Amino acid sequence: MALSRQYSHVTLTETDASFVAEIEAAAQRLKGVVLRTPLLPFRDGAFIKAESLQPTGSFKIRGAYNALAKLSPEERARGVVVHSSGNHAQAIARAARLLGMRAVVVMPDNAPDIKVAGVRADGGEIVFVGPHNVERVAKAHEIAHEQGLIVVSSANHADVVAGQGTCGLEIAEQLAERGVEGDVVVLVPVGLGGLSAGVSTVLASIDSDSRTFHVHGVEPELAADTRDSVAAGERVEWAPEDTGRTIADGLRAEAPAPIPFELLKKHLAGVITVTEDEIVDAMSVAAHEAKLVVEPSGATSLAALLHHRGELPSGTVVAVVTGGNVDPERYLEFLSGGQTPA
Amino acid sequence: MALSRQYSHVTLTETDASFVAEIEAAAQRLKGVVLRTPLLPFRDGAFIKAESLQPTGSFKIRGAYNALAKLSPEERARGVVVHSSGNHAQAIARAARLLGMRAVVVMPDNAPDIKVAGVRADGGEIVFVGPHNVERVAKAHEIAHEQGLIVVSSANHADVVAGQGTCGLEIAEQLAERGVEGDVVVLVPVGLGGLSAGVSTVLASIDSDSRTFHVHGVEPELAADTRDSVAAGERVEWAPEDTGRTIADGLRAEAPAPIPFELLKKHLAGVITVTEDEIVDAMSVAAHEAKLVVEPSGATSLAALLHHRGELPSGTVVAVVTGGNVDPERYLEFLSGGQTPA
Repeated sequence: MALSRQYSHVTLTETDASFVAEIEAAAQRLKGVVLRTPLLPFRDGAFIKAESLQPTGSFKIRGAYNALAKLSPEERARGVVVHSSGNHAQAIARAARLLGMRAVVVMPDNAPDIKVAGVRADGGEIVFVGPHNVERVAKAHEIAHEQGLIVVSSANHADVVAGQGTCGLEIAEQLAERGVEGDVVVLVPVGLGGLSAGVSTVLASIDSDSRTFHVHGVEPELAADTRDSVAAGERVEWAPEDTGRTIADGLRAEAPAPIPFELLKKHLAGVITVTEDEIVDAMSVAAHEAKLVVEPSGATSLAALLHHRGELPSGTVVAVVTGGNVDPERYLEFLSGGQTPA
Repeated sequence: MALSRQYSHVTLTETDASFVAEIEAAAQRLKGVVLRTPLLPFRDGAFIKAESLQPTGSFKIRGAYNALAKLSPEERARGVVVHSSGNHAQAIARAARLLGMRAVVVMPDNAPDIKVAGVRADGGEIVFVGPHNVERVAKAHEIAHEQGLIVVSSANHADVVAGQGTCGLEIAEQLAERGVEGDVVVLVPVGLGGLSAGVSTVLASIDSDSRTFHVHGVEPELAADTRDSVAAGERVEWAPEDTGRTIADGLRAEAPAPIPFELLKKHLAGVITVTEDEIVDAMSVAAHEAKLVVEPSGATSLAALLHHRGELPSGTVVAVVTGGNVDPERYLEFLSGGQTPA
């Protein structure tokens, strides 16, 4: 692979190109572990990339497994500790089990039962702390220090971002298999930015004779920190009491993480924001038209397609639906008429 | 392909072998039209074959498109008429649109809005009649006679059965890709028997050095006509007021159709029956664990896996989840605690 491949928006730097090589290596590493999720035809020639169907119910298994598989034998023997209230925790517990590693997960004591059960089912050791993010981070690092465990961040980690980027490789391959050419608009939900960074970087590297990719991030209006950060050219922090308002619990990050943000600044074509009602509508459409159970965070990309098509470039749209881990009672509330918190 | 391939249960007759060649030809015909649906890892090493993700929300597009694509140019110009209250109607309307054909669908006037809308969205012409099956059949044949249209039965048609059989080919390929060997138990919901006949016949033909397939039909206890027919060695009819009791509206056939039944008699390893409560439980598990919206008929195979594992041979289980077309209000009722009619 040449180090100076061009695409319509940017020239890849040598650093980017070597990161793309990492993503391609990750794709080999993940064979037989992650699902090559289907690219499902949707309305008006658009597609849904259904990452909700991955083992552990979200794309997070891509980055979690890649990061753990790259550890040295000595590091693997030590084990891993993560802080997460959600999908990263489940993905790390699964990846650790597959690799025969110990995994400690620091979770808030108000974490949904379904996510606690998911971690436990894969043999993850749970340490509960209070509900604030700062408590989780501090406790995880304390445990790492005391017990010699490796900390694996859910997004601020190159191997995690490289793993998430494999989703973008699959999108390019699947569009080629279907004979889709020309402009392609890829919509990716953005929390800390791991998935959107990996996907936008790898798609920037893919030869554009047949296809030109425009990767847009999608955020809730109530947690638009990456939109603001991209506009400012530097990481802008939102207050947790503000980002905490959205039902999209996976996208409540206060700011994009530093490592992904460096890639997003260069490779993201834009950021679309969606309302809470649009997210709920997209969850309903996902269920009844695409037959997919989608969590609020995962539905934001579909909400952008359904409600903000006019703000996007022309071309074939691919909405990455990132996860399906939603509490059963909450899910029923969402489907039965869009009950959203004020 | 040799005409005398063996497998563990039976020797394929020459007729069966030539039918398998039809299934293989159908697979070529369907490329780019049907989805190669994912084989999703599920509990305890089992898999779900997610046909609910097909265009039009069910496996029916396989047989419908294959049958229409095999018509002569003269027949295509005449157009097609079908009688159906459900998934076959939507699949035929879609296939006809793709092939530039006219499609007339005779539906009961109490058909769910979602299915009427699906047919209309693909340009199908709807003729409403009363709710009884006999009215639909009579009206379809009357229209065919008057207007020179081709009637395509939803199961009693060799090209439809061959199309459905392509699902079995994919299962065998996907298991091989995953390195799964040994005994494989495939669970297939049975209504008129088109899918189960195609899948069981093609899997009977596939070389068993690595894998031995045991295809079991699954029926509701309230509509176990194929179980009784297989036991009797001839088609046994249930009364419509009996089969009408199950929530699995796609499996209310009074008896297996004659063409599929000849194949089922030879190639089905057994029939499992499931209760209404087990079907509702399987719909809930599909939503919360597999992240799939599944209709009652489509959930019967999963119900057999979850509640009747002990009645099945040992081996890797594949549950074919056939469709996801369920009325939104009914779906909420099912998920919110299993409200089933008495």
